[in-house]
Amino acid sequence: MTVTGATGLFVTFEGGEGAGKSTQIRRLAASLKDKGHDVLVTREPGGSPGAEAVRHVLLSGGAERFGVRMEAMLFAAARNDHVEQVIRPALNSGRVVLCDRFIDSSRVYQGITGNLDAAFVDALEEIAIDGVRPDLTIILDLPASVGLARARQRGEAEGASGAPDRFEKEEVEVHEKRRQAFREIAEAAPERCRLIDAQRTEEEVASEIMAIVDAMMQERGGTGMEQ
Amino acid sequence: MTVTGATGLFVTFEGGEGAGKSTQIRRLAASLKDKGHDVLVTREPGGSPGAEAVRHVLLSGGAERFGVRMEAMLFAAARNDHVEQVIRPALNSGRVVLCDRFIDSSRVYQGITGNLDAAFVDALEEIAIDGVRPDLTIILDLPASVGLARARQRGEAEGASGAPDRFEKEEVEVHEKRRQAFREIAEAAPERCRLIDAQRTEEEVASEIMAIVDAMMQERGGTGMEQ
Repeated sequence: MTVTGATGLFVTFEGGEGAGKSTQIRRLAASLKDKGHDVLVTREPGGSPGAEAVRHVLLSGGAERFGVRMEAMLFAAARNDHVEQVIRPALNSGRVVLCDRFIDSSRVYQGITGNLDAAFVDALEEIAIDGVRPDLTIILDLPASVGLARARQRGEAEGASGAPDRFEKEEVEVHEKRRQAFREIAEAAPERCRLIDAQRTEEEVASEIMAIVDAMMQERGGTGMEQ
Repeated sequence: MTVTGATGLFVTFEGGEGAGKSTQIRRLAASLKDKGHDVLVTREPGGSPGAEAVRHVLLSGGAERFGVRMEAMLFAAARNDHVEQVIRPALNSGRVVLCDRFIDSSRVYQGITGNLDAAFVDALEEIAIDGVRPDLTIILDLPASVGLARARQRGEAEGASGAPDRFEKEEVEVHEKRRQAFREIAEAAPERCRLIDAQRTEEEVASEIMAIVDAMMQERGGTGMEQ
């Protein structure tokens, strides 16, 4: 019935640990479903059987077994499977796809804090996604120290328990470096990315995201405002 | 002592089934060792622990589980591991590396008879080998029907036993298509590839290959002629 309905909408969520990606995805999915949209929630790494198989190899062998380039290629192979088996078909059916982490996490974790050169990461990205780019990327931004504290409360942060102060400091530094990298991505691609202040309440953040998605759907001739 | 010794020599062997690749690699390795060269024999797919792990995933899951692009990316990841863990270090130590199948098999099996577009295969190749190109590629050429008959004698051909005539005919056709693709590669890259008539005796073929390698080593200021 609508343009949005015909071509789907691909929204990715990015940001560091404790930024609230999964919470916000859950809320947006619920709101969109309430409005009658057909929503698919997925995540990386993984998201398809083939991608999960590769993920298993990556986790089982211990990362030391693989070089950083090979590891990045395996992630890219998994992404390609996820795109071709799950994301592209859903978009072609007009669904709204919400994905927890996608290309920007690779750029940040592999490229900027993983010491892979940007040209290599870009080349892999092209191959992996084969034209399936996000229409919108929500980057949840908050200071690394706040995000890590939140993640620790949930017991999710790396080295969560009993890490000496020195390691904690280094950990905050690398997370802060990633945060800055995500901010730079948002700045470099304003037509795709929206930087969201994730220090506010869950409700405030959810409202802002819903407003952005609504506006985008209206712009595309979609049905974002209908109930 | 020599340029060859300092930089190594990377020789790949390509060709269809029954062309005699492993036999000729064995013979060349023995001849080179007799002349005092430090030789490493390796093969694809596989050749390194990481690459073998990926190969296991490819074989275990059944190819149907993965799309052709993802499969090609997994092969490329395995190749990258093989290059970085095995081939590049050996060449940097001045060794002669003989590899059973390499980039040209991907071009032929994935690109030409595997229906992947050449640009995709080329992009993956660049990423996988990261500059480690063969100095010399020996392409063993013979009619598909002859190669398949040889492979069947050894029980190695696909569908080796009791295949109906119709399937045998189709099988010969696809193998002949691959043969032509290898010939075209040889024609397009004469500075790297040598097309060898593999219908002659094992000894004749081995002599020709040894002469080519000797000449190349001399040209590079190497020690091909020393005993």
